[in-house]
Amino acid sequence: MTNRIPERASDAMMRRLPAYYRQLTELESIGFIDLSSKELARRMGLTDSQIRHDFNAFGGFGRRGRGYNVALLRRSIGDILDINRKHKLAIVGAGNIGRALSMYSGFDSQGFHVSVLFDNDPALVGKKFGGVRVYSVSNMTKQLQKNPVDIAVITTPADVAQALVEPLVAAGVKGIWNFAAVDLTGPEDVIISNVHLTDQLMMLTFRMHEKQVMEQKSAWVQE
Amino acid sequence: MTNRIPERASDAMMRRLPAYYRQLTELESIGFIDLSSKELARRMGLTDSQIRHDFNAFGGFGRRGRGYNVALLRRSIGDILDINRKHKLAIVGAGNIGRALSMYSGFDSQGFHVSVLFDNDPALVGKKFGGVRVYSVSNMTKQLQKNPVDIAVITTPADVAQALVEPLVAAGVKGIWNFAAVDLTGPEDVIISNVHLTDQLMMLTFRMHEKQVMEQKSAWVQE
Repeated sequence: MTNRIPERASDAMMRRLPAYYRQLTELESIGFIDLSSKELARRMGLTDSQIRHDFNAFGGFGRRGRGYNVALLRRSIGDILDINRKHKLAIVGAGNIGRALSMYSGFDSQGFHVSVLFDNDPALVGKKFGGVRVYSVSNMTKQLQKNPVDIAVITTPADVAQALVEPLVAAGVKGIWNFAAVDLTGPEDVIISNVHLTDQLMMLTFRMHEKQVMEQKSAWVQE
Repeated sequence: MTNRIPERASDAMMRRLPAYYRQLTELESIGFIDLSSKELARRMGLTDSQIRHDFNAFGGFGRRGRGYNVALLRRSIGDILDINRKHKLAIVGAGNIGRALSMYSGFDSQGFHVSVLFDNDPALVGKKFGGVRVYSVSNMTKQLQKNPVDIAVITTPADVAQALVEPLVAAGVKGIWNFAAVDLTGPEDVIISNVHLTDQLMMLTFRMHEKQVMEQKSAWVQE
């Protein structure tokens, strides 16, 4: 089998990687040692060839006819996702979403540790949410230089969010998970993921009504 | 121009629709009347032909050489997303994430109205978060039959989430936005969107380290 490392993973493949990782974690925990691509496909609701295609893109993990070793495959996908080590997170904005994320129980088990909160409200500075202390955003750079983080989660109002990118990047942040309702931009070597909660609801209503949409006569088309 | 209504919109196209809608809302608000696909492409960071391809898939909204009417295009995409009407939401699970979503300010302006919260904690029943009252989950079916909702948002622990699907569907829910860390399943005519917050962080770390991944020698490959 030849290693075929893709130039850049497709978005669809990238979205499947965490799902593979979750599935394999589950399978390992219930005692699976080896696994065929067919069985993995069945459990994931994918096709056999989709799975082989994904794994081959990263160099392949299996031997023809022998299937995959579950523990090895899980570790390998973990390496690719870079989650076999701890990542420190700062949350900027200790409002409702920021606090909820700081108390979210699912992160630590996957190595994502929220180590600090920032807010500009003096009434919140010094408080703790989920055991994480709130610092003033005016001390953010100093604080992050002392205790660096890998990822910043932005949960501020939209109008102040972009101004946070530069100081965060200057403090060494390499990834931004943005919940503010605005598309943030930054330097090329910093990855910014803009969440847009409302977009996710729009995609849900789109899919709920997709059939009707497809049947709908497009009255507004200008021929 | 021929109407070409796709059998099923691609995932990538579906993800772009809310972004188009946001961009057009912004453009309309600052006074744009007509717009070329070139200008829209520039603002969206897409190519001209990507945009024409997307819009043609839904029947086309423009006239060759004249561009698009911003207000019409926005309304049309809103129709496709089915957001030119109100949607009522129930949030099941009044924990940190559920409360944060009930207080999230971005939903109402797009027609998404959280009308009720449910929880099984007697200490929370009767309380209000973001003006929304918490009801006991044991009265959920009755409550939803009296005051139906279109969408349920599940923000409970993972182990109780699947058991909520059947009563929600029986009460007329057609879409489920699931934040519990488990893939929920349901009847074919109900759309379930499983969020997996940790997956989103994994995709972020994947992209942060993508270059290294691509260069990495795959030591575990069995040739």
